[in-house]
Amino acid sequence: MLAQDLATPYPTVRMDTSAREAAQLLAERHLPGLIVVDKDDHPVAILPGSQVLRLLIPTYVQDDPTLARVLEEKYADKICDVLDGKTVADMLPSDSDRKRLPVVAPNDTVLEIAALMAAHRSPVVAVVEARDRKAPLIGAITTADLLERLLSGTAGSGTTDAS
Amino acid sequence: MLAQDLATPYPTVRMDTSAREAAQLLAERHLPGLIVVDKDDHPVAILPGSQVLRLLIPTYVQDDPTLARVLEEKYADKICDVLDGKTVADMLPSDSDRKRLPVVAPNDTVLEIAALMAAHRSPVVAVVEARDRKAPLIGAITTADLLERLLSGTAGSGTTDAS
Repeated sequence: MLAQDLATPYPTVRMDTSAREAAQLLAERHLPGLIVVDKDDHPVAILPGSQVLRLLIPTYVQDDPTLARVLEEKYADKICDVLDGKTVADMLPSDSDRKRLPVVAPNDTVLEIAALMAAHRSPVVAVVEARDRKAPLIGAITTADLLERLLSGTAGSGTTDAS
Repeated sequence: MLAQDLATPYPTVRMDTSAREAAQLLAERHLPGLIVVDKDDHPVAILPGSQVLRLLIPTYVQDDPTLARVLEEKYADKICDVLDGKTVADMLPSDSDRKRLPVVAPNDTVLEIAALMAAHRSPVVAVVEARDRKAPLIGAITTADLLERLLSGTAGSGTTDAS
């Protein structure tokens, strides 16, 4: 069982995708995050839903969440207006603060994928066409997908020992 | 719109729930993590899927994921055997390393929840019966649930201004 067998299509956005479109995709698909790709479809980052919330909430409230109580509730209906004119690039944290998206190649094994996911504490890994920094995305594997496969006891090479 | 209106039932486990049961729940439900509750049903931690993977993967491989390549692929079919006899407590990181699960009360507003989620970078918050450290869990709210509500423009107090 290799990465290419486990990879499934996964929604992507680009740096210039509108912030609202990205937020809607996250809300609709109930994903741990969106994969951000560059113009060559190579994954460059993961955009978790919590980063979208960070853009929505004023900095002084992020620093002290109890201050949210002073905001008028009516403001909640308008809160997403701040997304207008903004892009995915505006929602991603700075490089140093950005959560790295682990990347695997099609021939990587289940154990390699699991080890990488565990080491990064990442809920998703991107599968790219080749272990080349600029290879395009072919899909992604979530922790749930991987656990499902490992628990079913069918994560081996696929060659049965019919001896 | 308050936490009590947004909370939905969420799978929980206890410290003594078997590791395999927890892993199966994560695999089946495709959740960002399971809520761990104590004997009074009070949430005490979140168990992300990546923590289950950490238990499965030998420490030397976690330290250097490229070593996963030296493990026989057949081992992948047996990897979950390590879960037998283990519990959720064995999978949770030590206190200092544990990701805190944000907790809100039924009357907390959408903005308070969003601010807390953003500050903790958490994909889920637990809703408890009262802002008391030992109050039982009544449900949870995921980032996707919250974004959905905020984007629909119906996150306000629910009292319409029909003026």
